[in-house]
Amino acid sequence: MLQKVEPARQKMADYTTPLVRNCWYVAALGSEIGRELKERTLLGKSVLMYRTEGGQPVIMQNRCPHRNFPLSKGRLDGDKVVCGYHGMNFDHKGNCVFMPSMAKAPTHVTIASYPVIEQGPLVWVWMGDPAKADPASVPQTPWLSAPDWKTVSGQFHVGTNYVAMHENLLDQTHFPILHSSTGIGTPEYSRATLEVRVVGDTVEQTRSLLNSPPPDIYGIPTRLTGRPVDRFSDAAFASPAWHVAHARIVNLEPREGEKREYRFTITHIYTPEHQNTIHYWWFNSRDCNIDDTAVDQYLRDASVKAYKEDVDALTWIQQEVEKESEPIEEASFAPDRPGIAMRKILLRLAAEEAAQDASMAA
Amino acid sequence: MLQKVEPARQKMADYTTPLVRNCWYVAALGSEIGRELKERTLLGKSVLMYRTEGGQPVIMQNRCPHRNFPLSKGRLDGDKVVCGYHGMNFDHKGNCVFMPSMAKAPTHVTIASYPVIEQGPLVWVWMGDPAKADPASVPQTPWLSAPDWKTVSGQFHVGTNYVAMHENLLDQTHFPILHSSTGIGTPEYSRATLEVRVVGDTVEQTRSLLNSPPPDIYGIPTRLTGRPVDRFSDAAFASPAWHVAHARIVNLEPREGEKREYRFTITHIYTPEHQNTIHYWWFNSRDCNIDDTAVDQYLRDASVKAYKEDVDALTWIQQEVEKESEPIEEASFAPDRPGIAMRKILLRLAAEEAAQDASMAA
Amino acid sequence: MLQKVEPARQKMADYTTPLVRNCWYVAALGSEIGRELKERTLLGKSVLMYRTEGGQPVIMQNRCPHRNFPLSKGRLDGDKVVCGYHGMNFDHKGNCVFMPSMAKAPTHVTIASYPVIEQGPLVWVWMGDPAKADPASVPQTPWLSAPDWKTVSGQFHVGTNYVAMHENLLDQTHFPILHSSTGIGTPEYSRATLEVRVVGDTVEQTRSLLNSPPPDIYGIPTRLTGRPVDRFSDAAFASPAWHVAHARIVNLEPREGEKREYRFTITHIYTPEHQNTIHYWWFNSRDCNIDDTAVDQYLRDASVKAYKEDVDALTWIQQEVEKESEPIEEASFAPDRPGIAMRKILLRLAAEEAAQDASMAA
Repeated sequence: MLQKVEPARQKMADYTTPLVRNCWYVAALGSEIGRELKERTLLGKSVLMYRTEGGQPVIMQNRCPHRNFPLSKGRLDGDKVVCGYHGMNFDHKGNCVFMPSMAKAPTHVTIASYPVIEQGPLVWVWMGDPAKADPASVPQTPWLSAPDWKTVSGQFHVGTNYVAMHENLLDQTHFPILHSSTGIGTPEYSRATLEVRVVGDTVEQTRSLLNSPPPDIYGIPTRLTGRPVDRFSDAAFASPAWHVAHARIVNLEPREGEKREYRFTITHIYTPEHQNTIHYWWFNSRDCNIDDTAVDQYLRDASVKAYKEDVDALTWIQQEVEKESEPIEEASFAPDRPGIAMRKILLRLAAEEAAQDASMAA
Repeated sequence: MLQKVEPARQKMADYTTPLVRNCWYVAALGSEIGRELKERTLLGKSVLMYRTEGGQPVIMQNRCPHRNFPLSKGRLDGDKVVCGYHGMNFDHKGNCVFMPSMAKAPTHVTIASYPVIEQGPLVWVWMGDPAKADPASVPQTPWLSAPDWKTVSGQFHVGTNYVAMHENLLDQTHFPILHSSTGIGTPEYSRATLEVRVVGDTVEQTRSLLNSPPPDIYGIPTRLTGRPVDRFSDAAFASPAWHVAHARIVNLEPREGEKREYRFTITHIYTPEHQNTIHYWWFNSRDCNIDDTAVDQYLRDASVKAYKEDVDALTWIQQEVEKESEPIEEASFAPDRPGIAMRKILLRLAAEEAAQDASMAA
Repeated sequence: MLQKVEPARQKMADYTTPLVRNCWYVAALGSEIGRELKERTLLGKSVLMYRTEGGQPVIMQNRCPHRNFPLSKGRLDGDKVVCGYHGMNFDHKGNCVFMPSMAKAPTHVTIASYPVIEQGPLVWVWMGDPAKADPASVPQTPWLSAPDWKTVSGQFHVGTNYVAMHENLLDQTHFPILHSSTGIGTPEYSRATLEVRVVGDTVEQTRSLLNSPPPDIYGIPTRLTGRPVDRFSDAAFASPAWHVAHARIVNLEPREGEKREYRFTITHIYTPEHQNTIHYWWFNSRDCNIDDTAVDQYLRDASVKAYKEDVDALTWIQQEVEKESEPIEEASFAPDRPGIAMRKILLRLAAEEAAQDASMAA
């Protein structure tokens, strides 16, 4: 069903490419995890999420290894999870520490407990090879918690693959069409030269636009509508798990009490649920007028409107490709270069993981 | 799932036989196609339908070749289709004529534009090998637009395969059972000798019944109930796309102002949506009392009642065969001869197409 | 999808093991079968159920062998089933006895009529090799119809496999956890020694508990709450189709007019609908206070509450294992011994049937 192009012929990842597992993904917002057992599917795995009495988030296999009962239907006893079927107890590391029907706990029985790191509002999890889970590689998002920044945010459950979502974010030629009513991407902006660099497993693009009035999306939060600014922006496919975009607005004619520079950061978090569904969280952060709730509301509304257009479009695309029974070859053009660079990285990462799995199995 | 009988052992088409593609099918009523983009699935392909400013119906691949966006979610600009994602423009022949992000249109990029012919109320499309699409072979249905004829019509979306629907129409032994309450098929009629001929890829059956009163279905529209008439009828599997039945009622004792002959034509149009779902349009046409709306209403009600019995029965059958995990062998009897002749034709046509596809692929 | 463990490596049946077919299963309660045609799916087969004019239940293949019409959509004519499409008639043995369109009935055409035996409130059917259907092996359940017994009963449609349901019933270590609020299984009871015996293709377990007050589930029906009794109980995986549990309560200090012994029998009937869905009927029978409708209500409520906890748990388990894409290895412990013995029997029976099928096909 899924495989529409012979894998060996594939030149870039698409919705049929296996998900990259060796990567820190966001499992949940920290605010979603508490002292209740919560189930979620991440990268095709059913997991259990809760917080210890000490406040540490825990993410474990949801399936009891005894008779497959979903542990999320059991209960917490202190920091231990108690299966709702026979009462098997697991500590937060996934070790069985008690089994009511057994005089001695079967301590050899364990379930996967995934490496977890909480940082700001995000709880990151490593679903791949635990030996490769380097805490130092957890994405840093200080703007989401810095006191001099303000963030509005939201989330979507999306019926498509992360490849399509990442490509959408690296692609600015869809702005005037898909977002024609949203006012993203002024004509000047799309004429500004885009620089694209592949740096390791990331794809970065930068653009600058000098001495022109900002579009509303920057003008309203900075209160510089109609006045000359320089705009420096960059956006990056940072990992399979996220995309981040920064904008720096330079106030060319600052008035008394005005800042010289204004910063914006947009964070897009994609966590595959299954192969072709995604948990999507977005964050729109700024360092100006952070107490202005009208700005909050404006940015929230504008973001939801624009991202929903993307989400709808990519869901329709996924539905359309699933109707197709014959191999699909996409036509690509020069402006698709950033997305293609990202898709080649995703294909290579997936192939490397497949090769590792094969060599481990051999 | 679908293949219940080893293909090589199959002697006649069933619901697992690949659909015949080299055939003119009805894509839509002309009245369904206008200046809005409309999506429909025909023979498993998602297509886009619209009408040019000049009024010509166009049927094209719905999937944009760039990033698979469904073009039906875009918009029309004159006669061109504009993709809703990046604005790629296609003319009615499926050629890319403009791409906003490119200085020069990538004219080598094309999508399938299917041969289309509009005739009377029907828009016919050729989804198979375009080289074989002969406009001269489009079915002729002049009775649907002739001014001295009147047609009532309707449609169903049916959960079964066209093989079963065609067999149902060639089979009159189900009349007294399935349609027992509808009064189709008087006892005299089922005793009239049926002649069956296979002519090329069609199956025709004729029957005549002399000097007897007509059943309501002819008696009410002709106003000859209870009076002696001769009935000459023929019915044909005309192609995988349709079935047509004609009846000629001869008024044996015409009174002043009465016609000598009355004609009826029933047209059944089947267009596979997927392998086992069908777009079904029916038309009941007559050349008598064409301004009598009570006759219209009578024929519409009687048709809907009878055809719904067929549609329900064949949907139940499809559901029943899908429950069966073991191979199904149908028992057939002498009266099944016309249906079996048709099913052998469909099997042969499908096999010929498969052989052509294989030789083209080699 | 279903096969998660390499069959050759399997040591005991699970939800992927083929269903055992050579076994008497309950098709329906006798009260469900009457002079209307009724459809039900049993072991993946769509069957037709009705009762002859003489009152004999009949269970036949539901699919007409002519054109696959579901006979349950037809009608009864005396003891014959009349297909709703072309009127083919079948007697209760599945023989075609009349075909309206044929001068002579095609008597060589038959459909499967399954061996059926009605006993008390239950109609048992044999869906496997008819040559192996021994009426003497139909399970005996005299307590369900004896005049000095009273039974309350109910049913569930369950989204899991019979393996899991049978294991649940042979497993008493889940009582204090899953049924913690139901009060099944007092602490004393779970400390009573359990004896387990494999006898042929059955697994029996017995337990006795002397001189202690009964739990409500026995105390209320016997009116012996708080008084000393001996409890002798046994439970058995009787066949793939059912599980039966007996309890004998001995009144150690009988007062005037009181019985010395009280008996309870719990009957669990499992009939696979498909591989992983079940028709489940339960019966709670007693030989005491049989006219006390308050006891009826108490036992009915307590049974529904407890069995629904099991049904929900096993449905959740089935959903959880279906989320898992990798092989599942269950951890098992000493108290799982009865269930494992049963699962080895089910695996062996399924393997024997597969071997017989293979040798018959060769």
